[in-house]
Amino acid sequence: MADSFRATRLVEFHDTDMAGIMHFASFFRYMESVEHEFIRSLGLSVHSLVEGDTLSFPRVAASCQFKSPARCEEILEVALRLTRIGNKSLTYAFDFSNAAREVATGQITCVCCRIEPGGPLASVSIPDPIVAKLQPFLA
Amino acid sequence: MADSFRATRLVEFHDTDMAGIMHFASFFRYMESVEHEFIRSLGLSVHSLVEGDTLSFPRVAASCQFKSPARCEEILEVALRLTRIGNKSLTYAFDFSNAAREVATGQITCVCCRIEPGGPLASVSIPDPIVAKLQPFLA
Amino acid sequence: MADSFRATRLVEFHDTDMAGIMHFASFFRYMESVEHEFIRSLGLSVHSLVEGDTLSFPRVAASCQFKSPARCEEILEVALRLTRIGNKSLTYAFDFSNAAREVATGQITCVCCRIEPGGPLASVSIPDPIVAKLQPFLA
Amino acid sequence: MADSFRATRLVEFHDTDMAGIMHFASFFRYMESVEHEFIRSLGLSVHSLVEGDTLSFPRVAASCQFKSPARCEEILEVALRLTRIGNKSLTYAFDFSNAAREVATGQITCVCCRIEPGGPLASVSIPDPIVAKLQPFLA
Repeated sequence: MADSFRATRLVEFHDTDMAGIMHFASFFRYMESVEHEFIRSLGLSVHSLVEGDTLSFPRVAASCQFKSPARCEEILEVALRLTRIGNKSLTYAFDFSNAAREVATGQITCVCCRIEPGGPLASVSIPDPIVAKLQPFLA
Repeated sequence: MADSFRATRLVEFHDTDMAGIMHFASFFRYMESVEHEFIRSLGLSVHSLVEGDTLSFPRVAASCQFKSPARCEEILEVALRLTRIGNKSLTYAFDFSNAAREVATGQITCVCCRIEPGGPLASVSIPDPIVAKLQPFLA
Repeated sequence: MADSFRATRLVEFHDTDMAGIMHFASFFRYMESVEHEFIRSLGLSVHSLVEGDTLSFPRVAASCQFKSPARCEEILEVALRLTRIGNKSLTYAFDFSNAAREVATGQITCVCCRIEPGGPLASVSIPDPIVAKLQPFLA
Repeated sequence: MADSFRATRLVEFHDTDMAGIMHFASFFRYMESVEHEFIRSLGLSVHSLVEGDTLSFPRVAASCQFKSPARCEEILEVALRLTRIGNKSLTYAFDFSNAAREVATGQITCVCCRIEPGGPLASVSIPDPIVAKLQPFLA
């Protein structure tokens, strides 16, 4: 059975809108924030230096389904799962909840790219040491 | 053949990130901004008053596929289409491009709700006068 | 000598811009986030219910001086001080730092207002029980 | 008498908060957006290439005073003035209004810096051709 990664996020006032609930676009920033917390928990960094390369993971797809509104100062539990580890890409799933209440479910697919100063992004295979760290979290 | 609605958006500096491109979550705000420009072009408002009710359209799903990076000060053309008009819900599709280059494609599904001060959101049928205005844009 | 309130904030990727540093406008969101953490630490809430009234503190002024750039994943220490408790208004000061390095200094002045559903904001005297909780933090 | 630069900005739904008004931190993004529109109106760009150097203008101070709330879909007029042209720095002032109603007044001070890939920011004198373009707008 896969390991899981869990984090909490408090809904900030500035993420609410005039409808009185957390704005839908803010869920995507919260997903990325939890993804990056997960990356750091593995001893990596958002801009990882591996074998002399600077790697980044730009997104190719993102989606979210909203089940119930999130309110200001509410504490959301976020469960992160890896649903796919490809040669060059990763797909994450995120479940937002508060106790038994489902709030939202989201997905992000990103591609491993090498960054060169001033140059374009080039997709590369995810290095083996990173795959080894991610593997236990594959659902 | 369906009518189309087109708008342009300049990529603002504050929507870029340290990777030097427009942050993926900003695309969702741009989609909503164009949706609202479309709503106003129909003579409606984000918080429409119809037959004495205040209506709003909270989101139940949103997704985006990213084809190529958008850069600061780039002018994106955004084409909006309605892909579904349900009894209580609408689905929009958005195509972001710059000349012949595809930048991103997104979707938003929202539900017609009546807002009562201090009360919960309650989904209602989309009023006929609004459906009549939307119908020509159904792809 | 005044009590102090301290919090930490990790600089999120989505708060950086293409110059590779935290965007200046994000400092204002971080200030408010720490202010609200302080408010909660007093047993209050962002929308405080006191003696049957719903109170809020809209801003009348905000400023920030930027001393050195903040980078992605950097952990900022934020020290909050109250520099003025007026009859209806409060002024906060915020010092952002990382170890001995000063990052930014900011100020927010806000006014106590009563919120009535659908009505305008009306400024009111800060209730005595709230003043009593704030007093120890007056610098 | 100084030339003036004027722009308009529609208050977007995503810039409102649960108090039903435009969030105070969004004013700083709107100021920068108008500053950049001004920069482009001079035939320059946010990342200007002058005499082989890439220049940028990071902020050293920003402030805003809020006079009256801005509401969703309201169209704000923004008047930009240059209040100081220093050897290495610029100070802008911004007046937000809607017809005769004052909404907010803000200030941004920024410093001319040369950007080298991977290197630190270094302040430099504002090049003469840029000063010449700015001079007519000095209030």
